[in-house]
Amino acid sequence: MKFTVAQLNYHIGNFSGNKNLICNAIRKAKAEGSDLIVFSELCIPGYPPLDLLDRFDFIEECNQTVLEIARECTGIAAIVGSPTLNKKQEGKKLFNSALLLSEGKVIFSANKALLPTYDIFDEYRYFEPERQFSVFQFKGLKIALTICEDLWDEQPFDNEFEKTRLYTVSPMEELSKQKPDVIINIAASPFSYSKIEAKENIFISKALKYKIPVISVNQTGAQTELIFDGASIVVNNKGEIFRQLPFFEEAVETYSYDEMKSGPAAIPDSINTIALIHKALVLGLRDYFIKTGLTKSIIGLSGGIDSALCLCLAVEALGNENVRALLMPSRYSSDHSVNDAVALAKTLRVHSDIINIEKPFTAFEEVLAPTFNGLTTDVTEENIQARIRAVLLMAISNKYGCILLNTSNKSEASVGYGTLYGDMSGGLSVIGDVYKTDVYRLASYVNRNKEIIPENIIRKLPSAELRPGQFDTDSLPDYQILDSILYQYIELQKPAERIIKDGAERDIVLKVIRMINFNEYKRYQAPPVLRISSKAFGAGRRMPIVARY
Amino acid sequence: MKFTVAQLNYHIGNFSGNKNLICNAIRKAKAEGSDLIVFSELCIPGYPPLDLLDRFDFIEECNQTVLEIARECTGIAAIVGSPTLNKKQEGKKLFNSALLLSEGKVIFSANKALLPTYDIFDEYRYFEPERQFSVFQFKGLKIALTICEDLWDEQPFDNEFEKTRLYTVSPMEELSKQKPDVIINIAASPFSYSKIEAKENIFISKALKYKIPVISVNQTGAQTELIFDGASIVVNNKGEIFRQLPFFEEAVETYSYDEMKSGPAAIPDSINTIALIHKALVLGLRDYFIKTGLTKSIIGLSGGIDSALCLCLAVEALGNENVRALLMPSRYSSDHSVNDAVALAKTLRVHSDIINIEKPFTAFEEVLAPTFNGLTTDVTEENIQARIRAVLLMAISNKYGCILLNTSNKSEASVGYGTLYGDMSGGLSVIGDVYKTDVYRLASYVNRNKEIIPENIIRKLPSAELRPGQFDTDSLPDYQILDSILYQYIELQKPAERIIKDGAERDIVLKVIRMINFNEYKRYQAPPVLRISSKAFGAGRRMPIVARY
Repeated sequence: MKFTVAQLNYHIGNFSGNKNLICNAIRKAKAEGSDLIVFSELCIPGYPPLDLLDRFDFIEECNQTVLEIARECTGIAAIVGSPTLNKKQEGKKLFNSALLLSEGKVIFSANKALLPTYDIFDEYRYFEPERQFSVFQFKGLKIALTICEDLWDEQPFDNEFEKTRLYTVSPMEELSKQKPDVIINIAASPFSYSKIEAKENIFISKALKYKIPVISVNQTGAQTELIFDGASIVVNNKGEIFRQLPFFEEAVETYSYDEMKSGPAAIPDSINTIALIHKALVLGLRDYFIKTGLTKSIIGLSGGIDSALCLCLAVEALGNENVRALLMPSRYSSDHSVNDAVALAKTLRVHSDIINIEKPFTAFEEVLAPTFNGLTTDVTEENIQARIRAVLLMAISNKYGCILLNTSNKSEASVGYGTLYGDMSGGLSVIGDVYKTDVYRLASYVNRNKEIIPENIIRKLPSAELRPGQFDTDSLPDYQILDSILYQYIELQKPAERIIKDGAERDIVLKVIRMINFNEYKRYQAPPVLRISSKAFGAGRRMPIVARY
Repeated sequence: MKFTVAQLNYHIGNFSGNKNLICNAIRKAKAEGSDLIVFSELCIPGYPPLDLLDRFDFIEECNQTVLEIARECTGIAAIVGSPTLNKKQEGKKLFNSALLLSEGKVIFSANKALLPTYDIFDEYRYFEPERQFSVFQFKGLKIALTICEDLWDEQPFDNEFEKTRLYTVSPMEELSKQKPDVIINIAASPFSYSKIEAKENIFISKALKYKIPVISVNQTGAQTELIFDGASIVVNNKGEIFRQLPFFEEAVETYSYDEMKSGPAAIPDSINTIALIHKALVLGLRDYFIKTGLTKSIIGLSGGIDSALCLCLAVEALGNENVRALLMPSRYSSDHSVNDAVALAKTLRVHSDIINIEKPFTAFEEVLAPTFNGLTTDVTEENIQARIRAVLLMAISNKYGCILLNTSNKSEASVGYGTLYGDMSGGLSVIGDVYKTDVYRLASYVNRNKEIIPENIIRKLPSAELRPGQFDTDSLPDYQILDSILYQYIELQKPAERIIKDGAERDIVLKVIRMINFNEYKRYQAPPVLRISSKAFGAGRRMPIVARY
């Protein structure tokens, strides 16, 4: 008995594309003598389909595609994930199902019982939870078929306030009564750099508890802001990782039941978090372009580290021929900014233009003079410069059909250190989930073999250069201190008093939290942010704007 | 036995403010000899608190405030809504609770069983559903205490694909076994102009079914984009509306059990949908400013009907002294645009400035010329004009501390007929949930007593005036046709084929749907939209950006 793990990169709503991917993998598995090929959760529509699940025509296309794939399953069976109609009179209209396909038919189905509805997950919005559980017999093996969260009944949370048992049912406890020989888990689990081991441990603990192998198949690829790491895993019946598929790549691999059950533990790769984040962001960028059908990008290159890093990521993801840089110096720009930016563009062989913003800036000053009559210069004039840059970037974006990449980092986005419709513009935020201190780490990683980002860009004090002699530290705490507070407040959701008790300075903590809360209105209008953490801005963090807190 | 219905306007996270509101109403009820005063769902934190519920300090403040209010309940009892901790080992960490307070203590609590998790609702994200039900005895009456959706177990949906029984439990069926004398329902139900009667019918049907009176208490006021209509309702045991509290206003009213039970049917006001939408938008605007603590607004006044209507709404909500208008004509603006806009500002006694955008436009053309070398004029130049206007509006917004109000309508937002970082800018979208055909109806309503909006603004052909002789109908179908297709696709979620079958032209339907889907990326970055329909853009409609559909 042979199993094939198919870790693929689907595209939401692209039924013909997803079907082709799946059918190619089925053919490969057949050639390898596989009996059962396993795909990931909701692979038919791609995950997460969100409110497309509310459209009846969308569900009909899912059903149609499942039947077409079932017809390809001759001499091999396949497990695919798809929404299916809940035929009962009551409850949500859909189930999140795993379907066993063989010889043109659906011969078994299991529905997801534990529906994650937190952070970026909204599954109870669409699906009815299953309440009944049964294993299926296949070629002499009893298989416990589960869907992602179904195995996460005892998951660890960052927030100490959360329970570790989020659900009142344990699907595996129910299934274990029927003495399965193997657990199959089809998943769609996005990457979080702080969750890599925790995720592995979920499968390890189930293998240990039930003394049977676990196969978990995750999707890879990015869907707008969510980046799925793949890293599908096979754990043997001693709870050792027999095989982990690559991170962020497609892979189709076949193993016999015996080797999965009692094969030797794989020698684990050491986890380089920064390298994984780098790979995640490159994939996130690339898939955004592939899946929107666009190829060209533009970046505003300031001479600072954020845009420098984004340019490197974009070139790696899209190729230098698909990236263009725009330098937009002002009367406040230092010479080194322009020189450093030009040097980087040259190293990366990226087309770059220089447009000085003085003329439009003067024009705005002139036409606004009567209205601003007698008022002193303030942050208004800084914002005008940032917004002129956005007008220029968007103009080239419109004229040449490029997507503007946003280069704000998470530290800035947290405290609102950025201009709405200015440097907060863009189709996709590349590093909006990366704290400034990690921006430096990623820049060093980019330079790991040779200097790509000029050392001067990495070494100089961060500055927005919107007025003479301006540095980030004029308005913000040192980034080491800031990022630590941000992480505790945003990712760990600690109360202010707890952060203070754990060592941060009271005044700074309270000031930073005020800034975070005050700036919800800005982040509401920010571009989608490639997500690498356990709590990114965007759909996973829903805060009221008018609240007082 | 006397009951008081307290329909109040809470503010999320403003615990001291909410407590004051509640305590004032308790004092009024006591003065009226009331035995039990009923407040609305989650009135302690204000609804919806969203992810503030993930913060332990926030929940502690809720508990603290409940206890403080309980101490005010001497000689009267009160029912308030608050999150409470789920003390069991399993499940979500919180319940959405109704608490009966008396003489300093919580003497009874009921938890919500049916947790709406669709459209703008995310309750299963935070709350564990209750599975046990019991009435409570109070001064000789058995009271069935329910929370909002608990009575909505048989609700009608717009989408034909939805079931009418969304849940597998009926809290009132369970509670009815204990023979209650009255149903109390504490609610937080936002306004949808198409749901007014459907909502009333829910309470009527329960009163008829169980032959007991129903008191439903809703909150009023707006929380960012959500506008709660109040319209709390008392239905007698014959299923007649005995009393409906006003729409969109606070009210505290006391009745005896006997009159609620068998009092006469109220003579119903005829429902004027446009008047209600008007009142909703004014409240939405006003509360956004009150609750963010800001007072002043700015609107870009084009001479078209959308900005004209928004200006009228803003003046009504905020007072003419808190609204300023900016006219920004270009080389393509017609004389009537400026004249009509000036006339309106004058009528409304609103401060207005005129800034011609020619200078900055020319400056941008000049600095972009080398990069645009030889390329023809296209939508790029139109977008530059729209973005220059946003720079000017945001400059005045920054300098004078005004919030920019966005004036895009729902028809434009649907098909992406607007410029990101241009006319799509603003802190709040005033009419982003109002189709163009309803914009005309609202404009006529504004003029119902005398001409405020110049007739010429209402009569002229809509035009963005971004190139010579441009009219909306050059790029879009007639608004009557467009809005009908949009409503069927967005609100009713009909498949394309169904819309065509129901009479719309195939080519137009397919073109419009393509435009809607293609423009998800723009709407992702749009401001919060005051919601008046059953399906507004924003949190209630979650679409993937990279999908193919």
